[in-house]
Amino acid sequence: MRTGIATVCLSGTLKEKMQACAIARFDGIEIFEQDLVTSSLSPEDVRKMAADLGLTLDLYQPFRDFDSVTEDLLAANLRRAEAKFRLMSRLGMDTILVCTNVATATIDDDDLRATQLSALADLAGEHGVKVAYEALAWGKYVNDYEHAHRLVEMVDHPNLGTCLDSFHILSRDWDTAPIEKINADKIFFVQVADAPKLSMDVLSWSRHYRVFPGEGQFELAKFMGHVVRAGYTGPVSLEVFNDVFRQSDVERTAVDAMRSLIWLEEQSAKWLDTNAPVANGTAAGAAATQPPARRRYPMELATLPQVAEPAGFNFAEVKAADTGVLEKVLGQLGFEFNGRHRTKDVQLWTMGHARVIINEQAPAAAEPAIAALGFDVDSPVIASARAQQLKAPVVPRKSQANEEVFQGFAAPDSTEIFLCQGSPDGTAAWTAEFGQGLEVPSGARNAVIDHVNLAQPWQHFDEAVLFYTSALALEPQPYAEVASPSGLVRSQVMQTSDRDVRLVLNLAPVIQQEGADPGTAPRKTYQEHIAFAVDDLVATARAARDRGLAFLQIPENYYEDLDARFDLDPGFLDTLRDLNLLYDRDADGEFLHFYTATVGSVFFEMVERRGNYDGYGAPNAPVRHAVQYDHLHDLTQTNH
Amino acid sequence: MRTGIATVCLSGTLKEKMQACAIARFDGIEIFEQDLVTSSLSPEDVRKMAADLGLTLDLYQPFRDFDSVTEDLLAANLRRAEAKFRLMSRLGMDTILVCTNVATATIDDDDLRATQLSALADLAGEHGVKVAYEALAWGKYVNDYEHAHRLVEMVDHPNLGTCLDSFHILSRDWDTAPIEKINADKIFFVQVADAPKLSMDVLSWSRHYRVFPGEGQFELAKFMGHVVRAGYTGPVSLEVFNDVFRQSDVERTAVDAMRSLIWLEEQSAKWLDTNAPVANGTAAGAAATQPPARRRYPMELATLPQVAEPAGFNFAEVKAADTGVLEKVLGQLGFEFNGRHRTKDVQLWTMGHARVIINEQAPAAAEPAIAALGFDVDSPVIASARAQQLKAPVVPRKSQANEEVFQGFAAPDSTEIFLCQGSPDGTAAWTAEFGQGLEVPSGARNAVIDHVNLAQPWQHFDEAVLFYTSALALEPQPYAEVASPSGLVRSQVMQTSDRDVRLVLNLAPVIQQEGADPGTAPRKTYQEHIAFAVDDLVATARAARDRGLAFLQIPENYYEDLDARFDLDPGFLDTLRDLNLLYDRDADGEFLHFYTATVGSVFFEMVERRGNYDGYGAPNAPVRHAVQYDHLHDLTQTNH
Repeated sequence: MRTGIATVCLSGTLKEKMQACAIARFDGIEIFEQDLVTSSLSPEDVRKMAADLGLTLDLYQPFRDFDSVTEDLLAANLRRAEAKFRLMSRLGMDTILVCTNVATATIDDDDLRATQLSALADLAGEHGVKVAYEALAWGKYVNDYEHAHRLVEMVDHPNLGTCLDSFHILSRDWDTAPIEKINADKIFFVQVADAPKLSMDVLSWSRHYRVFPGEGQFELAKFMGHVVRAGYTGPVSLEVFNDVFRQSDVERTAVDAMRSLIWLEEQSAKWLDTNAPVANGTAAGAAATQPPARRRYPMELATLPQVAEPAGFNFAEVKAADTGVLEKVLGQLGFEFNGRHRTKDVQLWTMGHARVIINEQAPAAAEPAIAALGFDVDSPVIASARAQQLKAPVVPRKSQANEEVFQGFAAPDSTEIFLCQGSPDGTAAWTAEFGQGLEVPSGARNAVIDHVNLAQPWQHFDEAVLFYTSALALEPQPYAEVASPSGLVRSQVMQTSDRDVRLVLNLAPVIQQEGADPGTAPRKTYQEHIAFAVDDLVATARAARDRGLAFLQIPENYYEDLDARFDLDPGFLDTLRDLNLLYDRDADGEFLHFYTATVGSVFFEMVERRGNYDGYGAPNAPVRHAVQYDHLHDLTQTNH
Repeated sequence: MRTGIATVCLSGTLKEKMQACAIARFDGIEIFEQDLVTSSLSPEDVRKMAADLGLTLDLYQPFRDFDSVTEDLLAANLRRAEAKFRLMSRLGMDTILVCTNVATATIDDDDLRATQLSALADLAGEHGVKVAYEALAWGKYVNDYEHAHRLVEMVDHPNLGTCLDSFHILSRDWDTAPIEKINADKIFFVQVADAPKLSMDVLSWSRHYRVFPGEGQFELAKFMGHVVRAGYTGPVSLEVFNDVFRQSDVERTAVDAMRSLIWLEEQSAKWLDTNAPVANGTAAGAAATQPPARRRYPMELATLPQVAEPAGFNFAEVKAADTGVLEKVLGQLGFEFNGRHRTKDVQLWTMGHARVIINEQAPAAAEPAIAALGFDVDSPVIASARAQQLKAPVVPRKSQANEEVFQGFAAPDSTEIFLCQGSPDGTAAWTAEFGQGLEVPSGARNAVIDHVNLAQPWQHFDEAVLFYTSALALEPQPYAEVASPSGLVRSQVMQTSDRDVRLVLNLAPVIQQEGADPGTAPRKTYQEHIAFAVDDLVATARAARDRGLAFLQIPENYYEDLDARFDLDPGFLDTLRDLNLLYDRDADGEFLHFYTATVGSVFFEMVERRGNYDGYGAPNAPVRHAVQYDHLHDLTQTNH
């Protein structure tokens, strides 16, 4: 698959954008007109730079508001088009995007449109230019790709073809199956963009909220499957207008973009493997009783090393300069110290099958923080190869002879992710590298890591979703928003189908305090945490209290509200209150949990899931945020 | 008018919110349930703190999903309600908001709803509680305030009344005139919120984008006019869910909120003065041929000192530690040095009626920046009194005997705003305080300040719009979005009806560079500027070039695109190109302009308006942003 990207997806100058696209190894780019007009590079400079960088210049775009106009305006539009054709010749480009008229169309007549497009195609032919005609979702008279393609067929000119843009098609819910019936020679270009399903006007949706494939909710594999079956072999090019990407680091965004195309390529191949071609006007998939045999298409789709979703968390690692408080808290929670590593400055703490590594190799004064997560996978080598093909930055971990080598890479928020060999009985061979030998069973022998909650920087939230989807086979769930004293927290669960891995990505706001020097970092009001599941939370909490654990203190008002909502047994409510436990209930089951006080930027949670409760106690999250904020605020005030 | 605000409008803990509301001098507050549930303050603590702060506790809210339910659920809901009534008794509160059912309603029957609401009202009566019933815009069966009020009338119970919320009414475009016909005794509460007109689902619009009155586009004065005519005398209370306010400084937001109510009170009085009451079912205003005589209503509406819109800019002030480059640039533009102030370290530079003060009293190493703007008003004393009643922070300016005293205050972005005595001939008396005596006519004797463009921090953009609307009588225009290499720039024009004052508020993005220490300030990519209008821009540019001015260099690609778009006379195009001039044209006229290079965080623009051109050359803004970014980037690279 030939990969492309429109320069409008990225921040920076045209030069910076082109460099970033080359570094991310795109095959070609679309030149967004405004990026050229505002550039100090001449067309000849751009042409040479692209050649030097190994980038093809695939599409000049957009040319707006051409068709359905009066005679006067047509003449002006042809003059304007000719100027652009001349410019394209200097750029060495041969394809231009012409989108259906939004602003100046006054005549709704397909015959007239065909005549006008024919004149444009003639002019384009004189300059060796191919016109790719695209239906905008909000085009005044033409807003449907099938309508646009009927016009292309009416004109029947070698220099006029269709441009298919997934956003304009999927945002309007147009059926994509008819794409298969389009003559591939007449598909001049294909643009792809994903988007979250939003209920808003399609123009604003398009201009601000598009995301890269895999970061939204469109059925892009199906769209691409139809395109591939049509026989299209040209570039598959990203055109994503996104307010955040426009202000994020250009190289990071370009890599994220490339990752999305690599992933889409794989998903398209999978879709083709499991959905039958459109036959006699029937939509694909619906009639397929068994998967069609794999066949080859003119567009070759590269595949990635295949991995199953991870079987569980292997370990979580917390790093600090002074690890004393961490050790104390884990001990109070009921974790057992399993010794020091024989060659590294790390400790192992376990509770049942929940393993926590305390890493002492942190810079001086570094506060405790979550540094790494280990996941159990079938084959660390294959999973690592897949992650690397998806452009995950490799994190080497030093190891001595006879020690297990972890395959690791850095997640977008720079948490280190390690791929480990899981074992059916839930143990981990590498624990033998620790001094005390075998694990000593703790009180909660069935304890596991239930979920891990990581704070994400706002620039990389969508990137993180795609990263965990594509590299680790986690499935994004619909996101929630939770109120906190410092703003709304966007919370996105990524999980495996059997829930053995649950990762929560939280986009946390920060309050910039008035009067603070703008050069100082904003007050950090969000922390990350690791949650452990046990069979008997009340017993776990009691034991922890006896060991002196500092619980997050839950306000009395919470328990009164809980009683008003759930009509709980008074004795049970007293137990919750007494132990600072939180409670939730839904149709599937019950959830009990408690939090520790925060150490550095990390805290711990213990949970008990009763029945088939599948959530995270979301109604209780505002209580946690408020208490943590209050505590942080107290500390802040004290320091002043 | 009794002023109120819901705690959900603000960031922080309940305690912080209450303190901020008291500082901003609200009469009372609504307790948003979650703020109490998550608080460590007991209900008794809250009651005492409110009393100590001089705040009444006006409304407990919200109580959700009560009506239209099955018998089982009704019993549970009544139990839940009774728990809240008991809690309210501890808080010393007597009014609760019950909103129409969204989630659990299954029976669409007004008789049943009336029966259920009647049971609730009976229970409320036993606890001395008044139930204010509100139609949510997305209520399952009841989403219209008239419907909700019909239910209140059906029940006809002293403990059941209506709550009117401007968002739920105006977002659905319900007619507000029938409010006048509601029995005032049955209006138990009034909530107000403004909002920009957005085309999106009403729930998301409501939960994220509400703003304070005057910051959006709803006809709130009309809404309030009808409420006042109905005879309502209770609190007018803000309920604004806004993602930005939720993460902004709590005291700032509370003051912004109070300003919006003071302004709304005045606007409501004006609306009442100019619109006739609803008669025989006719909507107010439509039938009014002449304004009704002012009359008194049960709710007293305080008025503010009245001011007309400013007649023009009196001066702009730029401040720097080293003013050398500023002096050079102004001189090159054709400004004349009019001497130093006789007692202060400031210089006066003029071109026609455009006056620029260069203030040398900046801290060491302070880069040149726009520090203050002076506006010509009819009466500085009255305008200053108005601004102070609108809670504008006063900025005292030192002056000696016989010197003009400027009334000044700080805008939300901390630019100092001075109110000056304008004179009909465009001169300013205070210029006599400068050493060289009278102004020396410069080459462009008709030059004036055309507009000033100020960068706004994102937390205070809405606040700034309301500030200039209410304190300075500027009118906000629909905002535009301009692409820049570092993201979209939101650009909001505030102007007077005759365009003698044009102020542009720009919300600029910032790129946080990867790898940069998060504690360092993000790279500043946006600058502020002052634009001067002259009669002959080409002559002004030629003269400036002869004096050696460093123009912002416009790329050749721009001129080629300009030609493609406008088919310009080749000689004229050469002139533009030769002088780095930018050009725009619309149905009303033409616009020529050029920019200087940036000095510190400020640059200058010279413009010529031909015909009735009323814009700012918006199509050219991306060129300016790109060139400025490129230049800044070059400097950044050099420094590394």
